[in-house]
Amino acid sequence: MSDSAVSVPSGTLPRAVVDLLGLLAYAELGGFFRLSADAELAPSLTDRMELAGLAATEYEHFTRLRDRLADAGEDTAAAMAPFVGAFDAWHERTRPQSWLESLVKAYVGDGIAADFYRQVAELVDPETRELVNAVLTETGRADFVIGKVRAAVDVDRAVAGRLALWARRLVGEALSEAQRVATERRELALLLAARDDESGTGEELADLGRLFARITETNAERIKALGLTV
Amino acid sequence: MSDSAVSVPSGTLPRAVVDLLGLLAYAELGGFFRLSADAELAPSLTDRMELAGLAATEYEHFTRLRDRLADAGEDTAAAMAPFVGAFDAWHERTRPQSWLESLVKAYVGDGIAADFYRQVAELVDPETRELVNAVLTETGRADFVIGKVRAAVDVDRAVAGRLALWARRLVGEALSEAQRVATERRELALLLAARDDESGTGEELADLGRLFARITETNAERIKALGLTV
Repeated sequence: MSDSAVSVPSGTLPRAVVDLLGLLAYAELGGFFRLSADAELAPSLTDRMELAGLAATEYEHFTRLRDRLADAGEDTAAAMAPFVGAFDAWHERTRPQSWLESLVKAYVGDGIAADFYRQVAELVDPETRELVNAVLTETGRADFVIGKVRAAVDVDRAVAGRLALWARRLVGEALSEAQRVATERRELALLLAARDDESGTGEELADLGRLFARITETNAERIKALGLTV
Repeated sequence: MSDSAVSVPSGTLPRAVVDLLGLLAYAELGGFFRLSADAELAPSLTDRMELAGLAATEYEHFTRLRDRLADAGEDTAAAMAPFVGAFDAWHERTRPQSWLESLVKAYVGDGIAADFYRQVAELVDPETRELVNAVLTETGRADFVIGKVRAAVDVDRAVAGRLALWARRLVGEALSEAQRVATERRELALLLAARDDESGTGEELADLGRLFARITETNAERIKALGLTV
């Protein structure tokens, strides 16, 4: 059950919002599995505990999105299905080869998720917005990463260059998958571009391009906070 | 912070109880990582979601044990360290090769944990007992496994024999690791054998043998519930 005060009868969520919730749900579930697996790279038990904690938070977020879908009479697995390929492909193409790479991935992924949640909160109904904001207040937990990466970079400046490239690749691959999803899920793209018209002019893709550019910029700031040059 | 009404000042937990909490904490943390990894074997997104849920519960249990240790001024990683080798060895030797094997492992592991929690609840101080009982009421979640395994066994009886062997191996390997831990951690062994004497007669190992025999018996019952012959 969701914490929403008002219950939503079956079938009342627009297709685009179901898509959005399905996308976010699989982002969290996939993130949960990936962070859990990456924890094998941790150099100490304490680090493994911290990464497990991040993973568990992603699972918690997943359950909120799942419950919201269930309350609206939607099947979570069906809602997630269109996005599994894109997220799995992203994780497949960005398998960390070291503990530092996995930390940067957790941090960048968490940051992109926060940007995205912030963006969509403006575009949805009040109940979905409440859910999105609740999840948003709990992101940014990857901030513990900053200290660890800065410490490693201080010891070896060559690490900074490699990790900066890695962080850029993470975002680049994410946006390339996002682009693919946007062309395949037109209603979702229209929602994200904040456009009501179904005129088929394709301008929502240009708007989405601007959204992606903003996410890239925010990410560049975030990478600077890690002490990495971009 | 734990939910305990009474706070425990630093250093007040007997060594054996710190050992016990460290052992349980790593059992949960290691279980969390293992279940998350095994979810890759799941045939459907719904099955992955269910296994992720089991893993998340293990993490939740871990946090309670961690908080209890922290409240008593103990370092969680240090308390877990003596048991990492045994649990990792168990997981290493019992890597599921199929979805059904991973389900049976989740179920058997959950069952052994429940038996063990039930046993130790009798042997510890009231606060630790409260914690152990709270965790215990949330085990048994692996019961969803029963339906899935029974369905598979109904379709192919040969599966039953193979899974029964697998379940026995899981318990056998677990007890062999437990035996090793018991010989290495004498205070813990004395606690588990419910013996106060430090006389060095070694009788606690015989008592422990009886405890292990009881766990084996309970497990045999549990395997029968899966529709597997033992």
